Amino acid sequence: MKSFLSLGQKMLMKLSAIRNSASILQQIRYAHVTKLGNQAKGLLFRQLFHDASYTYTYFLGCAKTRKAVVIDPVLEMVDRDIKFIEEMNLKLVYGLNTHVHADHVTGTGKLKQRIPGFQSVLSKASGGKADMLIEDGEVIQFGEQSIHCSATPGHTNGCMTYILPDHSMAFTGDALLIRACGRTDFQQGNAGQLYDSVYKRIFSLPDHYFLYPGHDYMGFSVTTVAEEKVLNPRLTLSRDEFINFMKELNLKYPKLIDIAVPTNLKCGEISKEALQGSAELLSKK
Amino acid sequence: MKSFLSLGQKMLMKLSAIRNSASILQQIRYAHVTKLGNQAKGLLFRQLFHDASYTYTYFLGCAKTRKAVVIDPVLEMVDRDIKFIEEMNLKLVYGLNTHVHADHVTGTGKLKQRIPGFQSVLSKASGGKADMLIEDGEVIQFGEQSIHCSATPGHTNGCMTYILPDHSMAFTGDALLIRACGRTDFQQGNAGQLYDSVYKRIFSLPDHYFLYPGHDYMGFSVTTVAEEKVLNPRLTLSRDEFINFMKELNLKYPKLIDIAVPTNLKCGEISKEALQGSAELLSKK
Repeated sequence: MKSFLSLGQKMLMKLSAIRNSASILQQIRYAHVTKLGNQAKGLLFRQLFHDASYTYTYFLGCAKTRKAVVIDPVLEMVDRDIKFIEEMNLKLVYGLNTHVHADHVTGTGKLKQRIPGFQSVLSKASGGKADMLIEDGEVIQFGEQSIHCSATPGHTNGCMTYILPDHSMAFTGDALLIRACGRTDFQQGNAGQLYDSVYKRIFSLPDHYFLYPGHDYMGFSVTTVAEEKVLNPRLTLSRDEFINFMKELNLKYPKLIDIAVPTNLKCGEISKEALQGSAELLSKK
Repeated sequence: MKSFLSLGQKMLMKLSAIRNSASILQQIRYAHVTKLGNQAKGLLFRQLFHDASYTYTYFLGCAKTRKAVVIDPVLEMVDRDIKFIEEMNLKLVYGLNTHVHADHVTGTGKLKQRIPGFQSVLSKASGGKADMLIEDGEVIQFGEQSIHCSATPGHTNGCMTYILPDHSMAFTGDALLIRACGRTDFQQGNAGQLYDSVYKRIFSLPDHYFLYPGHDYMGFSVTTVAEEKVLNPRLTLSRDEFINFMKELNLKYPKLIDIAVPTNLKCGEISKEALQGSAELLSKK
């Protein structure tokens, strides 16, 4: 009987079964009474949004030393970001890209031009250039704070999730989005690999961890491990179902990809053409 | 000599003087090491965004009883909001509007149709209709959590700031925006009154309080009392300078005002015309 059901119906049945589990609902309840950002431990934290590409940029600062990092800055928002850094008396030391983005040009190239000593960071596995090429398991220090790098390939081959164990936070880039995930149909995307990355590196984090995505298209800003384990309609599928689901998405070709990817492979080292192309394409929302 | 300076130059001088004050910078540093949202005390908190009107909607839930309130829901996002409430196993009891919005239609009317027992909340001073008309100083309870209502008129005559003293958070609507404030040129707006409201009711809160605005147009999501006291370019002016500054803004007439205000005066009790008009106008971004 089950085999006659569509993938959508199967998903709904599975979700319904999972949601009815009292123990998992209890986990969700627990997840939401933990601390968000946990600034009590000396971390300055801000989430910023770029409306044209629906990208989230994150500032993380050591409240004591004022050393700070930015995760996934956007080229068009660098002026905003620099003003903010100056106002808050922060010294921006690293610009971390979660991956080589296809939907916007990273701001790390422009930030390098503007901030002496600022270094771009990208995974070695991406095949891109950066001041610091990082590998799975490395730890990035800024003042008294530290970020753990966890390789989560599948959306691209070089995706990195940045984890702050002291603050129960993880920045998942496009590996895991709220109730969704990044596409796997270009840039060495591999649905099976993404599924394994999410299960081994993100869903294995404690349930109360807050997950901050690279984008959100519905206005959500944060989620938790417990929540996505139960409510993510894609990642609650079996591995095989997930691979099929991703294969059948048939998404449009990203309008900025031919400018963004070559530029982002160099951490946003921008040519005039890229700059102009990015602005033009983003304005055609 | 000073009298020959433009208002802009005066602002810059003042800001520069304030920023150089070591003690105030110290306050900013302090503000950022306090807890964000403070979910450890049993509060479930989420900030959601509506891209077409740049509006923030906030969900606040009692983690124990699952009773929840929503602040400033948006008509077009009610389906998203209801899905979220159901997924999170929340019982939405109140929909609080910070004021009678001119730039979007509130979602409280539609939420009333969809959620049995849900009540709309608006300040009595607004002259609007709601299930619960509140006055300055009232406290709204949801489960073990409570919201304090603080009248902050000036943007409109019925603006209310919602404060959660247990969590060091305040929801300022359009009275105070991040590095800005709501306009004061219609809907009984009064710049002097707004200035007084901000100083007496928002800047008088402890420096470490997090302030969540009704909108942000630059992608910022949160600020603090300490930060706005020092860095808000409008509210760091003198009262007279602020009144002149607001007089000279010459902003465009809000495109949705003629639909939004009459509808929002009834907490979003929507006519077919309003529904259609809102969707059409918002699509012309």
